[in-house]
Amino acid sequence: MTDSPRLARAWRAQVITLLPQAFPGVLGESLTGRALKDGLWQLDTVDLRRFGEGKHRNVDDTPAGGGAGMVLRADVMGQALDHALQNAPKGAPLIYLSPRGRRFDQAMARQLSQAPGVTLICGRFEGLDERVIEHYGIQEVSLGDFVLTGGEIAAQALIDATVRLIPRVLGNQESTEEESFSDGLLEHPQYTRPATWKGLPIPEILLSGHHGNITDWRRTQAERLTKERRPDLWRAYCAAHGRDPDEDQEL
Amino acid sequence: MTDSPRLARAWRAQVITLLPQAFPGVLGESLTGRALKDGLWQLDTVDLRRFGEGKHRNVDDTPAGGGAGMVLRADVMGQALDHALQNAPKGAPLIYLSPRGRRFDQAMARQLSQAPGVTLICGRFEGLDERVIEHYGIQEVSLGDFVLTGGEIAAQALIDATVRLIPRVLGNQESTEEESFSDGLLEHPQYTRPATWKGLPIPEILLSGHHGNITDWRRTQAERLTKERRPDLWRAYCAAHGRDPDEDQEL
Repeated sequence: MTDSPRLARAWRAQVITLLPQAFPGVLGESLTGRALKDGLWQLDTVDLRRFGEGKHRNVDDTPAGGGAGMVLRADVMGQALDHALQNAPKGAPLIYLSPRGRRFDQAMARQLSQAPGVTLICGRFEGLDERVIEHYGIQEVSLGDFVLTGGEIAAQALIDATVRLIPRVLGNQESTEEESFSDGLLEHPQYTRPATWKGLPIPEILLSGHHGNITDWRRTQAERLTKERRPDLWRAYCAAHGRDPDEDQEL
Repeated sequence: MTDSPRLARAWRAQVITLLPQAFPGVLGESLTGRALKDGLWQLDTVDLRRFGEGKHRNVDDTPAGGGAGMVLRADVMGQALDHALQNAPKGAPLIYLSPRGRRFDQAMARQLSQAPGVTLICGRFEGLDERVIEHYGIQEVSLGDFVLTGGEIAAQALIDATVRLIPRVLGNQESTEEESFSDGLLEHPQYTRPATWKGLPIPEILLSGHHGNITDWRRTQAERLTKERRPDLWRAYCAAHGRDPDEDQEL
Protein backbone atom coordinates (compact mmCIF):
# COMPACT_ATOMS: atom_id res chain seq x y z
CA MET A 1 0.00 0.00 0.00
CA THR A 2 1.48 3.35 -0.95
CA ASP A 3 1.51 6.24 1.45
CA SER A 4 -1.14 8.20 -0.42
CA PRO A 5 -2.89 11.11 1.31
CA ARG A 6 -5.46 10.20 3.97
CA LEU A 7 -8.41 11.53 2.00
CA ALA A 8 -7.70 9.18 -0.87
CA ARG A 9 -8.45 6.15 1.29
CA ALA A 10 -12.04 5.26 1.98
CA TRP A 11 -13.24 4.78 5.54
CA ARG A 12 -13.32 1.06 6.13
CA ALA A 13 -15.59 -1.04 8.34
CA GLN A 14 -14.82 -4.69 9.01
CA VAL A 15 -17.44 -6.77 10.79
CA ILE A 16 -16.76 -10.14 12.41
CA THR A 17 -20.07 -11.99 12.45
CA LEU A 18 -21.83 -15.34 12.24
CA LEU A 19 -24.33 -13.69 9.87
CA PRO A 20 -22.29 -12.16 7.04
CA GLN A 21 -25.38 -12.46 4.81
CA ALA A 22 -27.05 -9.76 6.97
CA PHE A 23 -24.64 -7.18 5.52
CA PRO A 24 -24.85 -4.60 4.01
CA GLY A 25 -28.60 -4.93 4.77
CA VAL A 26 -30.11 -1.48 5.29
CA LEU A 27 -26.62 0.01 4.86
CA GLY A 28 -26.79 -0.93 1.17
CA GLU A 29 -29.84 1.35 0.69
CA SER A 30 -30.38 5.07 0.43
CA LEU A 31 -27.61 7.48 1.45
CA THR A 32 -25.22 4.94 2.93
CA GLY A 33 -25.77 2.59 -0.02
CA ARG A 34 -25.06 5.32 -2.54
CA ALA A 35 -21.90 6.29 -0.66
CA LEU A 36 -20.84 2.63 -0.56
CA LYS A 37 -21.26 2.34 -4.34
CA ASP A 38 -19.41 5.63 -4.79
CA GLY A 39 -16.47 4.26 -2.81
CA LEU A 40 -16.72 6.81 0.01
CA TRP A 41 -16.57 3.93 2.45
CA GLN A 42 -15.95 0.18 2.37
CA LEU A 43 -17.59 -2.71 4.14
CA ASP A 44 -16.09 -6.17 4.65
CA THR A 45 -17.40 -9.02 6.70
CA VAL A 46 -15.32 -11.74 8.34
CA ASP A 47 -17.33 -14.94 8.70
CA LEU A 48 -16.62 -16.26 12.20
CA ARG A 49 -17.79 -19.74 11.14
CA ARG A 50 -14.72 -20.08 8.87
CA PHE A 51 -12.55 -20.17 12.00
CA GLY A 52 -14.69 -22.75 13.80
CA GLU A 53 -13.35 -26.03 15.20
CA GLY A 54 -13.75 -29.47 13.68
CA LYS A 55 -16.09 -30.85 11.10
CA HIS A 56 -19.03 -28.78 12.36
CA ARG A 57 -16.96 -25.60 12.63
CA ASN A 58 -18.05 -25.06 16.21
CA VAL A 59 -17.60 -21.52 17.44
CA ASP A 60 -19.12 -21.81 20.92
CA ASP A 61 -19.20 -23.98 24.00
CA THR A 62 -21.02 -24.15 27.35
CA PRO A 63 -20.18 -21.53 30.01
CA ALA A 64 -17.47 -22.49 32.49
CA GLY A 65 -19.18 -22.81 35.87
CA GLY A 66 -22.52 -23.72 34.31
CA GLY A 67 -25.54 -21.72 33.32
CA ALA A 68 -27.75 -21.27 30.29
CA GLY A 69 -26.63 -20.51 26.77
CA MET A 70 -23.37 -20.77 24.90
CA VAL A 71 -20.22 -18.65 24.95
CA LEU A 72 -18.12 -17.75 21.89
CA ARG A 73 -14.74 -19.44 22.20
CA ALA A 74 -11.63 -17.35 22.80
CA ASP A 75 -9.50 -19.41 20.42
CA VAL A 76 -11.98 -19.20 17.54
CA MET A 77 -12.61 -15.47 17.94
CA GLY A 78 -8.86 -14.93 18.38
CA GLN A 79 -8.19 -16.41 14.94
CA ALA A 80 -10.94 -14.35 13.32
CA LEU A 81 -9.54 -11.25 15.01
CA ASP A 82 -5.99 -11.93 13.87
CA HIS A 83 -7.29 -12.22 10.33
CA ALA A 84 -9.35 -9.01 10.59
CA LEU A 85 -6.56 -7.02 12.22
CA GLN A 86 -4.17 -7.90 9.39
CA ASN A 87 -6.55 -6.19 7.00
CA ALA A 88 -7.63 -3.28 9.21
CA PRO A 89 -6.36 0.21 8.47
CA LYS A 90 -3.81 1.40 11.03
CA GLY A 91 -5.51 3.24 13.87
CA ALA A 92 -8.97 1.76 13.33
CA PRO A 93 -10.56 1.08 16.74
CA LEU A 94 -11.51 -2.47 17.70
CA ILE A 95 -15.00 -2.59 19.18
CA TYR A 96 -17.19 -5.33 20.65
CA LEU A 97 -20.87 -4.45 20.64
CA SER A 98 -22.15 -5.38 24.08
CA PRO A 99 -24.75 -4.06 26.52
CA ARG A 100 -21.94 -3.84 29.10
CA GLY A 101 -20.10 -1.25 27.05
CA ARG A 102 -19.80 2.54 26.95
CA ARG A 103 -22.91 3.97 25.37
CA PHE A 104 -22.63 4.92 21.74
CA ASP A 105 -23.47 8.56 21.06
CA GLN A 106 -23.08 11.28 18.46
CA ALA A 107 -19.66 12.33 19.80
CA MET A 108 -18.40 8.76 19.37
CA ALA A 109 -19.85 8.64 15.85
CA ARG A 110 -18.00 11.85 15.00
CA GLN A 111 -14.76 10.48 16.43
CA LEU A 112 -15.10 7.20 14.52
CA SER A 113 -15.86 9.07 11.29
CA GLN A 114 -12.48 10.78 11.66
CA ALA A 115 -10.65 7.47 12.21
CA PRO A 116 -9.57 5.45 9.15
CA GLY A 117 -12.27 2.89 9.88
CA VAL A 118 -13.44 0.46 12.53
CA THR A 119 -13.31 -3.27 13.27
CA LEU A 120 -16.50 -4.55 14.89
CA ILE A 121 -17.20 -7.82 16.67
CA CYS A 122 -20.80 -9.02 16.75
CA GLY A 123 -21.61 -11.32 19.64
CA ARG A 124 -24.33 -13.99 19.67
CA PHE A 125 -25.58 -16.26 22.45
CA GLU A 126 -24.22 -15.39 25.90
CA GLY A 127 -21.35 -13.37 24.46
CA LEU A 128 -17.60 -13.59 24.20
CA ASP A 129 -15.06 -15.38 26.37
CA GLU A 130 -13.74 -12.58 28.59
CA ARG A 131 -10.10 -13.48 27.88
CA VAL A 132 -10.38 -12.30 24.25
CA ILE A 133 -11.63 -8.92 25.42
CA GLU A 134 -8.70 -8.59 27.82
CA HIS A 135 -6.00 -9.95 25.54
CA TYR A 136 -6.82 -7.69 22.58
CA GLY A 137 -7.80 -4.68 24.69
CA ILE A 138 -11.16 -4.58 22.95
CA GLN A 139 -13.44 -1.59 23.62
CA GLU A 140 -16.97 -2.55 24.59
CA VAL A 141 -19.61 -0.24 23.12
CA SER A 142 -23.33 -0.43 23.83
CA LEU A 143 -26.23 0.84 21.78
CA GLY A 144 -28.30 1.25 24.93
CA ASP A 145 -29.73 -0.51 27.96
CA PHE A 146 -31.40 -3.37 26.16
CA VAL A 147 -30.43 -6.85 25.00
CA LEU A 148 -30.35 -7.87 21.32
CA THR A 149 -30.12 -11.42 19.98
CA GLY A 150 -26.79 -10.45 18.45
CA GLY A 151 -24.51 -7.53 17.68
CA GLU A 152 -25.39 -7.25 13.98
CA ILE A 153 -28.14 -4.63 14.27
CA ALA A 154 -26.03 -2.65 16.73
CA ALA A 155 -23.11 -2.79 14.27
CA GLN A 156 -25.34 -1.47 11.51
CA ALA A 157 -26.55 1.38 13.71
CA LEU A 158 -22.98 2.32 14.63
CA ILE A 159 -21.86 2.21 11.00
CA ASP A 160 -24.88 4.17 9.75
CA ALA A 161 -24.50 6.98 12.30
CA THR A 162 -20.76 7.16 11.53
CA VAL A 163 -20.81 6.91 7.74
CA ARG A 164 -23.27 9.80 7.33
CA LEU A 165 -20.68 12.05 9.01
CA ILE A 166 -17.95 11.14 6.50
CA PRO A 167 -17.31 14.09 4.16
CA ARG A 168 -19.38 14.04 0.95
CA VAL A 169 -21.75 11.26 2.11
CA LEU A 170 -24.53 13.73 2.80
CA GLY A 171 -25.44 15.70 -0.34
CA ASN A 172 -25.91 19.45 -0.54
CA GLN A 173 -29.57 19.06 0.25
CA GLU A 174 -28.82 17.45 3.57
CA SER A 175 -27.19 18.86 6.62
CA THR A 176 -25.98 17.75 10.02
CA GLU A 177 -25.88 21.28 11.39
CA GLU A 178 -29.42 21.69 12.65
CA GLU A 179 -30.16 18.15 13.73
CA SER A 180 -30.46 16.66 17.19
CA PHE A 181 -27.30 16.69 19.35
CA SER A 182 -25.28 18.86 16.93
CA ASP A 183 -25.57 21.71 19.46
CA GLY A 184 -26.54 19.67 22.50
CA LEU A 185 -30.29 20.17 21.97
CA LEU A 186 -33.07 18.01 20.56
CA GLU A 187 -34.26 19.14 17.16
CA HIS A 188 -37.02 21.72 16.78
CA PRO A 189 -40.34 20.68 15.20
CA GLN A 190 -40.49 20.59 11.40
CA TYR A 191 -43.42 21.38 9.10
CA THR A 192 -44.01 21.28 5.36
CA ARG A 193 -46.86 21.65 2.87
CA PRO A 194 -49.85 21.49 2.99
CA ALA A 195 -50.26 24.78 4.90
CA THR A 196 -53.30 23.37 6.70
CA TRP A 197 -53.86 19.68 7.38
CA LYS A 198 -56.85 18.32 9.31
CA GLY A 199 -57.51 21.87 10.49
CA LEU A 200 -53.96 22.21 11.85
CA PRO A 201 -52.02 25.15 10.34
CA ILE A 202 -48.26 25.50 10.05
CA PRO A 203 -47.16 27.96 12.78
CA GLU A 204 -47.54 31.44 11.28
CA ILE A 205 -44.03 32.56 12.10
CA LEU A 206 -42.57 29.91 9.77
CA LEU A 207 -44.46 31.44 6.85
CA SER A 208 -43.47 35.03 7.76
CA GLY A 209 -40.22 35.14 5.81
CA HIS A 210 -38.44 36.78 8.78
CA HIS A 211 -35.35 34.62 8.98
CA GLY A 212 -34.19 36.08 12.29
CA ASN A 213 -37.54 35.41 13.95
CA ILE A 214 -37.67 31.91 12.51
CA THR A 215 -34.21 31.09 13.84
CA ASP A 216 -35.18 32.42 17.28
CA TRP A 217 -38.44 30.47 17.30
CA ARG A 218 -36.71 27.24 16.33
CA ARG A 219 -34.09 27.65 19.03
CA THR A 220 -36.77 28.38 21.63
CA GLN A 221 -38.69 25.27 20.55
CA ALA A 222 -35.54 23.14 20.67
CA GLU A 223 -34.79 24.44 24.16
CA ARG A 224 -38.36 23.81 25.33
CA LEU A 225 -38.35 20.24 24.01
CA THR A 226 -34.95 19.48 25.51
CA LYS A 227 -35.94 20.93 28.90
CA GLU A 228 -39.18 18.93 28.94
CA ARG A 229 -37.88 15.62 27.65
CA ARG A 230 -34.23 15.45 28.57
CA PRO A 231 -33.33 17.27 31.77
CA ASP A 232 -29.87 15.68 31.53
CA LEU A 233 -29.10 17.26 28.14
CA TRP A 234 -30.71 20.51 29.26
CA ARG A 235 -28.44 20.81 32.31
CA ALA A 236 -25.35 20.12 30.18
CA TYR A 237 -26.48 22.70 27.61
CA CYS A 238 -27.07 25.33 30.27
CA ALA A 239 -23.70 24.65 31.88
CA ALA A 240 -22.01 25.07 28.48
CA HIS A 241 -23.87 28.33 27.79
CA GLY A 242 -23.66 29.90 31.26
CA ARG A 243 -27.41 29.66 31.80
CA ASP A 244 -29.51 28.76 34.79
CA PRO A 245 -31.29 25.45 34.02
CA ASP A 246 -34.20 26.50 36.25
CA GLU A 247 -34.68 29.95 34.74
CA ASP A 248 -38.27 30.83 34.02
CA GLN A 249 -38.09 31.46 30.31
CA GLU A 250 -40.87 32.19 27.93
CA LEU A 251 -40.53 28.85 26.24
CA MET B 1 -61.49 -12.40 13.42
CA THR B 2 -62.81 -14.63 16.19
CA ASP B 3 -62.25 -13.83 19.80
CA SER B 4 -59.73 -16.61 20.31
CA PRO B 5 -57.50 -16.59 23.40
CA ARG B 6 -54.67 -14.04 23.44
CA LEU B 7 -51.93 -16.65 23.17
CA ALA B 8 -53.31 -17.92 19.92
CA ARG B 9 -52.55 -14.62 18.18
CA ALA B 10 -49.01 -13.92 17.19
CA TRP B 11 -47.34 -10.66 18.24
CA ARG B 12 -47.51 -8.39 15.23
CA ALA B 13 -45.11 -5.65 14.09
CA GLN B 14 -46.10 -3.26 11.32
CA VAL B 15 -43.44 -0.95 9.93
CA ILE B 16 -44.17 2.15 7.83
CA THR B 17 -41.06 2.77 5.74
CA LEU B 18 -39.66 4.02 2.45
CA LEU B 19 -37.40 0.95 2.44
CA PRO B 20 -39.70 -2.09 2.78
CA GLN B 21 -37.03 -4.16 1.03
CA ALA B 22 -34.82 -3.71 4.12
CA PHE B 23 -37.17 -6.00 6.08
CA PRO B 24 -36.97 -8.54 7.60
CA GLY B 25 -33.19 -8.08 7.10
CA VAL B 26 -31.32 -9.40 10.13
CA LEU B 27 -34.67 -10.18 11.77
CA GLY B 28 -35.13 -12.98 9.21
CA GLU B 29 -32.02 -14.75 10.54
CA SER B 30 -31.18 -16.80 13.59
CA LEU B 31 -33.55 -16.81 16.59
CA THR B 32 -35.91 -14.08 15.40
CA GLY B 33 -36.02 -15.58 11.91
CA ARG B 34 -36.84 -19.04 13.24
CA ALA B 35 -39.60 -17.59 15.42
CA LEU B 36 -40.96 -15.66 12.43
CA LYS B 37 -41.12 -18.85 10.36
CA ASP B 38 -42.71 -20.67 13.29
CA GLY B 39 -45.44 -18.01 13.44
CA LEU B 40 -44.55 -16.80 16.95
CA TRP B 41 -44.60 -13.25 15.57
CA GLN B 42 -45.54 -11.48 12.34
CA LEU B 43 -43.92 -8.70 10.39
CA ASP B 44 -45.62 -6.48 7.82
CA THR B 45 -44.28 -3.43 6.08
CA VAL B 46 -46.34 -0.52 4.77
CA ASP B 47 -44.59 1.14 1.83
CA LEU B 48 -44.90 4.89 2.41
CA ARG B 49 -44.22 5.54 -1.29
CA ARG B 50 -47.59 3.98 -2.19
CA PHE B 51 -49.29 6.94 -0.50
CA GLY B 52 -47.16 9.57 -2.24
CA GLU B 53 -48.58 12.48 -4.27
CA GLY B 54 -48.71 12.74 -8.05
CA LYS B 55 -46.90 10.94 -10.80
CA HIS B 56 -43.65 10.78 -8.83
CA ARG B 57 -45.37 9.68 -5.62
CA ASN B 58 -43.70 12.46 -3.65
CA VAL B 59 -43.62 11.89 0.08
CA ASP B 60 -41.66 14.93 1.20
CA ASP B 61 -41.32 18.66 0.70
CA THR B 62 -39.03 21.51 1.84
CA PRO B 63 -39.24 22.66 5.48
CA ALA B 64 -41.64 25.53 6.20
CA GLY B 65 -39.47 28.48 7.22
CA GLY B 66 -36.50 27.27 5.17
CA GLY B 67 -33.46 25.17 6.03
CA ALA B 68 -31.70 22.14 4.68
CA GLY B 69 -33.27 18.78 3.91
CA MET B 70 -36.77 17.58 3.30
CA VAL B 71 -39.67 16.87 5.66
CA LEU B 72 -42.11 13.95 5.36
CA ARG B 73 -45.58 15.32 4.54
CA ALA B 74 -48.38 15.13 7.10
CA ASP B 75 -51.01 14.21 4.50
CA VAL B 76 -48.95 11.37 2.98
CA MET B 77 -47.94 9.91 6.35
CA GLY B 78 -51.51 10.35 7.57
CA GLN B 79 -52.81 8.11 4.80
CA ALA B 80 -50.16 5.47 5.43
CA LEU B 81 -51.02 5.60 9.13
CA ASP B 82 -54.75 5.24 8.56
CA HIS B 83 -54.00 2.16 6.47
CA ALA B 84 -51.66 0.68 9.08
CA LEU B 85 -53.98 1.39 11.99
CA GLN B 86 -56.83 -0.45 10.29
CA ASN B 87 -54.68 -3.57 10.33
CA ALA B 88 -53.04 -3.12 13.71
CA PRO B 89 -54.10 -5.33 16.62
CA LYS B 90 -56.11 -3.39 19.21
CA GLY B 91 -53.85 -1.94 21.87
CA ALA B 92 -50.66 -2.03 19.83
CA PRO B 93 -48.63 1.14 20.58
CA LEU B 94 -47.88 3.58 17.76
CA ILE B 95 -44.23 4.62 17.83
CA TYR B 96 -42.11 7.02 15.77
CA LEU B 97 -38.40 6.27 16.00
CA SER B 98 -36.71 9.60 16.57
CA PRO B 99 -33.68 10.89 18.47
CA ARG B 100 -36.03 13.28 20.28
CA GLY B 101 -37.92 10.42 21.88
CA ARG B 102 -37.89 8.58 25.17
CA ARG B 103 -34.95 6.21 25.25
CA PHE B 104 -35.67 2.60 24.44
CA ASP B 105 -34.61 0.21 27.19
CA GLN B 106 -35.15 -3.33 28.43
CA ALA B 107 -38.23 -2.34 30.47
CA MET B 108 -39.85 -0.91 27.33
CA ALA B 109 -38.94 -4.05 25.39
CA ARG B 110 -40.61 -6.17 28.07
CA GLN B 111 -43.71 -3.98 28.01
CA LEU B 112 -43.94 -4.12 24.23
CA SER B 113 -43.52 -7.91 24.26
CA GLN B 114 -46.64 -8.09 26.43
CA ALA B 115 -48.65 -5.88 24.05
CA PRO B 116 -50.35 -7.53 21.04
CA GLY B 117 -47.80 -5.87 18.74
CA VAL B 118 -46.47 -2.51 17.65
CA THR B 119 -46.83 -0.07 14.73
CA LEU B 120 -43.56 1.67 13.91
CA ILE B 121 -42.90 4.73 11.76
CA CYS B 122 -39.45 5.04 10.21
CA GLY B 123 -38.42 8.61 9.44
CA ARG B 124 -36.00 9.67 6.71
CA PHE B 125 -34.54 13.06 5.81
CA GLU B 126 -35.29 15.80 8.36
CA GLY B 127 -38.17 13.83 9.89
CA LEU B 128 -41.91 14.04 10.14
CA ASP B 129 -44.27 17.01 9.96
CA GLU B 130 -44.99 17.75 13.63
CA ARG B 131 -48.75 17.86 13.05
CA VAL B 132 -48.91 14.10 12.37
CA ILE B 133 -47.18 13.40 15.66
CA GLU B 134 -49.69 15.61 17.50
CA HIS B 135 -52.82 14.50 15.66
CA TYR B 136 -52.24 10.77 16.16
CA GLY B 137 -50.69 11.10 19.61
CA ILE B 138 -47.63 9.23 18.40
CA GLN B 139 -45.02 8.18 20.99
CA GLU B 140 -41.49 9.16 20.06
CA VAL B 141 -38.90 6.54 21.01
CA SER B 142 -35.16 6.93 20.60
CA LEU B 143 -32.49 4.28 20.34
CA GLY B 144 -29.94 6.65 21.84
CA ASP B 145 -28.23 10.02 21.51
CA PHE B 146 -27.10 9.66 17.93
CA VAL B 147 -28.55 10.38 14.50
CA LEU B 148 -29.27 7.66 11.93
CA THR B 149 -30.01 8.20 8.22
CA GLY B 150 -33.45 6.70 8.87
CA GLY B 151 -35.51 4.82 11.40
CA GLU B 152 -35.18 1.39 9.81
CA ILE B 153 -32.19 0.13 11.83
CA ALA B 154 -33.74 1.52 15.01
CA ALA B 155 -37.00 -0.29 14.19
CA GLN B 156 -35.09 -3.53 13.72
CA ALA B 157 -33.32 -3.07 17.07
CA LEU B 158 -36.61 -2.41 18.84
CA ILE B 159 -38.26 -5.43 17.23
CA ASP B 160 -35.30 -7.72 17.91
CA ALA B 161 -35.05 -6.79 21.61
CA THR B 162 -38.81 -7.22 21.96
CA VAL B 163 -39.35 -10.43 19.98
CA ARG B 164 -36.75 -12.37 21.96
CA LEU B 165 -38.85 -11.75 25.08
CA ILE B 166 -41.98 -13.27 23.55
CA PRO B 167 -42.72 -16.67 25.15
CA ARG B 168 -41.17 -19.63 23.28
CA VAL B 169 -38.89 -17.49 21.08
CA LEU B 170 -35.83 -18.34 23.14
CA GLY B 171 -35.24 -22.08 23.29
CA ASN B 172 -34.50 -24.11 26.40
CA GLN B 173 -30.80 -23.56 25.89
CA GLU B 174 -31.19 -19.80 26.12
CA SER B 175 -32.22 -17.65 29.00
CA THR B 176 -32.97 -14.05 29.78
CA GLU B 177 -32.56 -14.50 33.49
CA GLU B 178 -28.86 -13.92 33.91
CA GLU B 179 -28.28 -11.35 31.21
CA SER B 180 -27.61 -7.65 31.45
CA PHE B 181 -30.39 -5.49 32.94
CA SER B 182 -32.55 -8.46 34.03
CA ASP B 183 -31.65 -7.63 37.65
CA GLY B 184 -30.39 -4.08 37.12
CA LEU B 185 -26.76 -5.12 36.76
CA LEU B 186 -24.43 -5.58 33.82
CA GLU B 187 -23.66 -9.19 33.03
CA HIS B 188 -20.78 -11.00 34.71
CA PRO B 189 -17.82 -12.19 32.58
CA GLN B 190 -18.24 -15.46 30.72
CA TYR B 191 -15.64 -18.13 29.92
CA THR B 192 -15.62 -21.40 28.03
CA ARG B 193 -13.17 -24.00 26.76
CA PRO B 194 -10.22 -24.12 26.24
CA ALA B 195 -9.24 -24.04 29.93
CA THR B 196 -6.11 -22.06 29.08
CA TRP B 197 -5.76 -19.77 26.09
CA LYS B 198 -2.64 -17.72 25.34
CA GLY B 199 -1.50 -18.44 28.90
CA LEU B 200 -4.75 -17.10 30.35
CA PRO B 201 -6.66 -19.61 32.52
CA ILE B 202 -10.36 -19.69 33.24
CA PRO B 203 -10.82 -18.38 36.83
CA GLU B 204 -10.36 -21.38 39.12
CA ILE B 205 -13.59 -20.89 41.01
CA LEU B 206 -15.62 -21.53 37.83
CA LEU B 207 -14.04 -24.98 37.55
CA SER B 208 -14.58 -25.80 41.26
CA GLY B 209 -18.05 -27.27 40.93
CA HIS B 210 -19.22 -25.27 43.99
CA HIS B 211 -22.43 -23.80 42.65
CA GLY B 212 -22.96 -21.48 45.62
CA ASN B 213 -19.46 -20.04 45.31
CA ILE B 214 -19.85 -19.65 41.56
CA THR B 215 -23.14 -17.78 41.98
CA ASP B 216 -21.55 -15.48 44.56
CA TRP B 217 -18.52 -14.83 42.38
CA ARG B 218 -20.66 -14.00 39.39
CA ARG B 219 -22.79 -11.60 41.39
CA THR B 220 -19.70 -9.91 42.81
CA GLN B 221 -18.26 -9.55 39.31
CA ALA B 222 -21.52 -8.14 37.96
CA GLU B 223 -21.62 -5.65 40.82
CA ARG B 224 -17.99 -4.63 40.30
CA LEU B 225 -18.50 -4.09 36.55
CA THR B 226 -21.69 -2.11 37.09
CA LYS B 227 -20.09 0.07 39.78
CA GLU B 228 -17.05 0.78 37.56
CA ARG B 229 -18.83 1.34 34.27
CA ARG B 230 -22.31 2.54 35.09
CA PRO B 231 -22.55 4.57 38.29
CA ASP B 232 -26.15 5.43 37.29
CA LEU B 233 -27.25 1.79 37.23
CA TRP B 234 -25.21 1.07 40.35
CA ARG B 235 -26.98 3.79 42.35
CA ALA B 236 -30.40 2.53 41.22
CA TYR B 237 -29.45 -1.05 42.13
CA CYS B 238 -28.23 -0.03 45.58
CA ALA B 239 -31.38 1.99 46.22
CA ALA B 240 -33.52 -1.03 45.27
CA HIS B 241 -31.50 -3.36 47.53
CA GLY B 242 -31.04 -1.03 50.53
CA ARG B 243 -27.30 -0.79 50.01
CA ASP B 244 -24.87 2.08 50.30
CA PRO B 245 -23.51 2.80 46.79
CA ASP B 246 -20.21 3.99 48.30
CA GLU B 247 -19.69 1.00 50.56
CA ASP B 248 -16.19 -0.39 50.47
CA GLN B 249 -16.86 -3.91 49.34
CA GLU B 250 -14.41 -6.58 48.47
CA LEU B 251 -15.25 -6.41 44.80
